[in-house]
Amino acid sequence: MGESQTRSFVLRGDVCYNRSLTEFDARRDAYVVCVDGVSQGVFDELPDRYQGLPVVDCAGRLVVPGLVDLHVHAPQYTFRGIAMDLELLDWLNTYTFPEESKYADLAYADEAYGYFAQDLRASATTRAAIFASLHVPATALLMDKLEATGLKTYVGKVNMDRNSPDSLTDGSAQASLAATCAWLDQVDGAYRNTRPIITPRFTPSCTDALMEGLGALAGERGLPVQSHLSENLTEIAWVGELCPWAACYGETYDRWGLLGGADKGARKGGADKGGATERGTGPGVTERGASKAIMAHCNYSSPEEVELLRARGTYVAHCPQSNANVASGIAPVRRYLDLGMDVGLGTDVAGGASLSMFRGVTDAVMASKLRWRCVDQSLAPLTIQEAFYLATLGGGSFFGRVGSLAAGYDFDALVLDDSGIRSPRQLGVEQRLERFCYLHGEGGRIEHKYVAGNKVF
Amino acid sequence: MGESQTRSFVLRGDVCYNRSLTEFDARRDAYVVCVDGVSQGVFDELPDRYQGLPVVDCAGRLVVPGLVDLHVHAPQYTFRGIAMDLELLDWLNTYTFPEESKYADLAYADEAYGYFAQDLRASATTRAAIFASLHVPATALLMDKLEATGLKTYVGKVNMDRNSPDSLTDGSAQASLAATCAWLDQVDGAYRNTRPIITPRFTPSCTDALMEGLGALAGERGLPVQSHLSENLTEIAWVGELCPWAACYGETYDRWGLLGGADKGARKGGADKGGATERGTGPGVTERGASKAIMAHCNYSSPEEVELLRARGTYVAHCPQSNANVASGIAPVRRYLDLGMDVGLGTDVAGGASLSMFRGVTDAVMASKLRWRCVDQSLAPLTIQEAFYLATLGGGSFFGRVGSLAAGYDFDALVLDDSGIRSPRQLGVEQRLERFCYLHGEGGRIEHKYVAGNKVF
Repeated sequence: MGESQTRSFVLRGDVCYNRSLTEFDARRDAYVVCVDGVSQGVFDELPDRYQGLPVVDCAGRLVVPGLVDLHVHAPQYTFRGIAMDLELLDWLNTYTFPEESKYADLAYADEAYGYFAQDLRASATTRAAIFASLHVPATALLMDKLEATGLKTYVGKVNMDRNSPDSLTDGSAQASLAATCAWLDQVDGAYRNTRPIITPRFTPSCTDALMEGLGALAGERGLPVQSHLSENLTEIAWVGELCPWAACYGETYDRWGLLGGADKGARKGGADKGGATERGTGPGVTERGASKAIMAHCNYSSPEEVELLRARGTYVAHCPQSNANVASGIAPVRRYLDLGMDVGLGTDVAGGASLSMFRGVTDAVMASKLRWRCVDQSLAPLTIQEAFYLATLGGGSFFGRVGSLAAGYDFDALVLDDSGIRSPRQLGVEQRLERFCYLHGEGGRIEHKYVAGNKVF
Repeated sequence: MGESQTRSFVLRGDVCYNRSLTEFDARRDAYVVCVDGVSQGVFDELPDRYQGLPVVDCAGRLVVPGLVDLHVHAPQYTFRGIAMDLELLDWLNTYTFPEESKYADLAYADEAYGYFAQDLRASATTRAAIFASLHVPATALLMDKLEATGLKTYVGKVNMDRNSPDSLTDGSAQASLAATCAWLDQVDGAYRNTRPIITPRFTPSCTDALMEGLGALAGERGLPVQSHLSENLTEIAWVGELCPWAACYGETYDRWGLLGGADKGARKGGADKGGATERGTGPGVTERGASKAIMAHCNYSSPEEVELLRARGTYVAHCPQSNANVASGIAPVRRYLDLGMDVGLGTDVAGGASLSMFRGVTDAVMASKLRWRCVDQSLAPLTIQEAFYLATLGGGSFFGRVGSLAAGYDFDALVLDDSGIRSPRQLGVEQRLERFCYLHGEGGRIEHKYVAGNKVF
């Protein structure tokens, strides 16, 4: 049986998904049709034209889109849930850099990435943008393991050439770029599910020369970019010292084409389909740089920086659990959404302890309420449907037509068993999804998972 | 075999527990000795005098004190994890009061409380202070079910005689007090594990006449008290209107002896052992009122109110998840600890979605970091050991010598299997506990649970 046949079927269950940030569809006992890995839409009655397809009967179960983790550090999975007593820069130097140094040892990487890949496969995540370490062999090994999960992932070899410990540095911009090219030659196009993404760690770890080279590489190879931006106040001040030429932290990426292109039309087609676009500032950066970029956090972006992100179409990866654990603060997500910007959610393991994107959804809601209460009442808290949008369509569009069960989207889906969350109340489908997000770990279970129509389990 | 024999044994495992707020003991491969339900202490080598006791070998498992939920609403368990889009007063009127009204139906209560008791039994909680609804038959039924779990609990019939819907009111102060007396006559002393606690809902729901009567009842019967205090800014303003005679919200309880007695020496012996104590204000309140009281939240207590709570020895039940979900804010827990006040943790289901006190521990840490970051940098974030103290000794002392594995404490213990939280790293016992708190739902498992030396499972 060919793949186009195995990837064509009907799921029956209680379906809910976002059509957009503001449109949420929830239907009891409905049918989602998948043909060749692409959703044909959700139907109350199965249309005649699909009667010949096999029906997977999940009556009574929730059927929702797969969740997208837009920011997660694979090598940090080994110390998730510990070492939460420091702020960002001290946390990096004390816990993170020493741990990432271990991935020079391929045996260590093999065990650690094995757990990460297995647990990610079992999680709610169907797509992820992942930081590896700076080690090329370990990063390729991670990509091998992720490829085998069936999940769709971007993986980045991390670049670092300054303010880094001797045990964790590429040594120089030239060496970092050479290692990156060698890595790309090895992995780019080598997988069905896993693709490389250009990954400067963050400005404090990368010289301008390295940034310039990475921007050029992203443009030449048509690769997307991921990094960190304006997570912590001390970090931002440090970037100001390191790059006095930049009007804002964001400009330290943008100057080299690392915030993504501004052509939203092309960009929407998928991270690696959009072309590089002209940008106005910086010497020699026209016609180069990434088509698409993710910046994690953006907790303290200045108005100028926000405008830059908006103009470039940069994706913001909101990581509420990490931002609490490392005491960074709470990002003004509502503001970014009001501006029409692309925002997704990240677990940011190990800043975040949990790999669960359901947890990410509820953390986003809770953080937004505390921000409303404690910081700024001009930004209304997120609703559960808005947070679910962030975890599906919001981050999903980075991967193409991903994050919804509406017709035309890649068929990424979860079948959720919530029968273990017991109550005498009869709840609506929408309420059951909300409850599952909060209580997935207390009686909920992911029964099946599909990525682009392929069954993961 | 007599109970004194079955309750005498040795647990072998990786032990960690608080000796106090600032003293944390973590030992690999140690022995905790239980004789007649009371801990004899933790030992690296098993002393000769205990060699005859049966050893429960939990080598490689974590052994920690049972956790204490100092504030949870049993009838709200039916809608945990949904209906999180309103602030406190609207949330009560829209979701909570209609739900609690259903407990007039004993069949509904039977199913709902059955789930609650079963899930609480399976949880990390060994002791809990629980709000029921105002219905006497349903409250007695809840107590029957809780008694059978083996957990040690206080349960309160809720009192309400104003600002309440027709479907959820005792009707008058007199009727409310009469119902409470009838309930107490039925349940007080009727159980081994479960005891009544006087439970005015909160000041907006209770007239002064009802509060006065409840204070007298607590004093006469030697019963503790639980209620809510200074959770939400709108609530506090409303109390100011309802009780213009009170200098602070706390005084609306204290005037009637409902904040507990000031005699800390007597109080430390257990909630129902301390005598009523003299208080200085209010007509005719000398020699009456509760020996011990829990006030949930205290998010916005004025300096005057804090001084009142401190003077009375009132327990503060900190409920960080609920305070985020209902957008109430974040309590200044560090301030209360610095003042030497008694503070415990509450899940506050269904303001809190999760019944897990491990989640409560990490929520307390995370909330304190966000408060430090967003509100007030004079109050340092809580450490994981401090938050674990809150969940064990902090709330445990309300129940007597409870919340530690040190010698002389009631033997409440959990045996935790963390082998499903995989990592190539070898972690210390203390780190493994921290990780379990964060990731109990992602690979952790409660293997055994003991309350006062009795095995629950």
